[in-house]
Amino acid sequence: MTRLIDVAKLAKVSTATVSRVINNNGYVSAKVRERVMKAIEELGYQPAKAARFLAKSGQNFDIGVVADDWVLKSITTVIDEFYSIVYKGIIDFSKNHRMNIHLLDVNSWDENADGFLLIGGGITKELVREVKKTKKPLVLVDQYLPGLKVDYVVSDGYDGAVFAVDKLISKGMKRIVHIHGPLSHFGFRDRYDGYMATMEMHGFMPKSYEFDEINDNMSTIVDMMLRSYGKPDAIFGSNDTAAIRAMEELKSRGFRIPEDISVIGFDDIMSASLVSPKLTTLKIFKYDLGSIAARRLFNLLMGEEKHPVKISLFTQYIERESTI
Amino acid sequence: MTRLIDVAKLAKVSTATVSRVINNNGYVSAKVRERVMKAIEELGYQPAKAARFLAKSGQNFDIGVVADDWVLKSITTVIDEFYSIVYKGIIDFSKNHRMNIHLLDVNSWDENADGFLLIGGGITKELVREVKKTKKPLVLVDQYLPGLKVDYVVSDGYDGAVFAVDKLISKGMKRIVHIHGPLSHFGFRDRYDGYMATMEMHGFMPKSYEFDEINDNMSTIVDMMLRSYGKPDAIFGSNDTAAIRAMEELKSRGFRIPEDISVIGFDDIMSASLVSPKLTTLKIFKYDLGSIAARRLFNLLMGEEKHPVKISLFTQYIERESTI
Repeated sequence: MTRLIDVAKLAKVSTATVSRVINNNGYVSAKVRERVMKAIEELGYQPAKAARFLAKSGQNFDIGVVADDWVLKSITTVIDEFYSIVYKGIIDFSKNHRMNIHLLDVNSWDENADGFLLIGGGITKELVREVKKTKKPLVLVDQYLPGLKVDYVVSDGYDGAVFAVDKLISKGMKRIVHIHGPLSHFGFRDRYDGYMATMEMHGFMPKSYEFDEINDNMSTIVDMMLRSYGKPDAIFGSNDTAAIRAMEELKSRGFRIPEDISVIGFDDIMSASLVSPKLTTLKIFKYDLGSIAARRLFNLLMGEEKHPVKISLFTQYIERESTI
Repeated sequence: MTRLIDVAKLAKVSTATVSRVINNNGYVSAKVRERVMKAIEELGYQPAKAARFLAKSGQNFDIGVVADDWVLKSITTVIDEFYSIVYKGIIDFSKNHRMNIHLLDVNSWDENADGFLLIGGGITKELVREVKKTKKPLVLVDQYLPGLKVDYVVSDGYDGAVFAVDKLISKGMKRIVHIHGPLSHFGFRDRYDGYMATMEMHGFMPKSYEFDEINDNMSTIVDMMLRSYGKPDAIFGSNDTAAIRAMEELKSRGFRIPEDISVIGFDDIMSASLVSPKLTTLKIFKYDLGSIAARRLFNLLMGEEKHPVKISLFTQYIERESTI
């Protein structure tokens, strides 16, 4: 089925512009209108349902959900479950709160929306500064950019890391290695900081390696670690992908998980419960990320709260088979 | 004037218990009742106004504001402006939201309250676990204890530190020294992490010293720094007290602030704008800390939100005379 966003993409306009053409409200230049109508025809788009929904929009808020291509694809095709669940949280809250959601690409977002949810790692400081210029409320979701002072809804990597490392220490482990993604991403930095603080607090030596997911250097990391640091009691990965790859490399070298080495991940992706042994991890509440962000935006639209805040959702420790 | 809390202290009971005796509602043992009445008589306490206020409480929420002695004194005597302003934010929100506030000591809090605001550094993990057992909603204010997963309202030290250090770097400075309080306090740790991340991100060498506010080792720190590290371009203190003391020691050694060395603090305490040169700092929104915490508790009481979150308020950079 053709969707509003397909029309928007073909016509090279935002979904909000397509909405305005369909509902014949708000200014759209003759040239753009023609392009949209042509795209609707070409794709055989049936605006009936969307039009009914949007017909009420004189009373409703138009919300632009802005993300990069990869996140938009995740939302619409469920290749990656993460953002499709976040999006479900947004949609469910919006339904009951007079908010019409329009999916917009970071490169063609529409400043006419009443408010914005900017989602994921593709959101840059430059984009946020541009969107801020509209003076419309905005909330960043699953992305934090220090020093900007806008509203954020993120998951708390620090707290989860402290909990995981404390858990390992409570079982008598001391030699806990952290394998993390690039620390220029705040999400990884936050978990790294939690790991470092907890190790220091207990007087244990921290040891960390950077995992390059794209070039997959896990085999090198594990060799290096075994050679120069020795066998760890446990490995804490800054995401499930790193933890699962570490587990594979350790197993291939004859180590038993968790008897020889415990492994903990972060995120709770689908494969975490499919690998063997099943991965102990910290679960991110994806649906709540979306619904809490939508609620925050709604409150901002209603003028209820003025002070920008970062709302961090706690994660949940899911104990499976990769830890003793 | 004698206050409810004075009666409670003398009778060694919670303020809520005193309220119950005064209003003659809820169970209080004969023995405790006698002790309270005796304290009321001894102190000449006039319960008329409090009684009028509490008379409506059948319809209202009783909120326990729990803190240690030092914070309670700050609230009631305004020795330290910080918590009296936080408290004003709580009171103002509560007035319009059917919440009656009772000041309670950490050692004699009353589990009969409908909800709790736990304020400041005197709140321990043990206390939070005890209060959690009541199954009543609770919010920690200006205190974060990793791994507990309860609701928090705090100020964002990380973001403020990143902003301050970035600001210094944007003026061409590289040799930026951080003087911080004990890192076992999350408030200081958070600012430290922000400083470290920003220095690393720019490829500059971080250098930090721990300031012991009680034994005041600032003179030693400054000597040590000048001897082993050399003159810094700037000093970023993890609170105004550290920054002001560093400024004094540097001035006494002939350095000009800000011409030779820039200094930035954190908190915006009253003396920050009274010292010479006036201190550039990061302002914490004390009133908003209180009102946002009260709002969060109200939402929890109304059953509106279930997922525990940490709400971090951004600080504001206040440029005065101690930075070039």
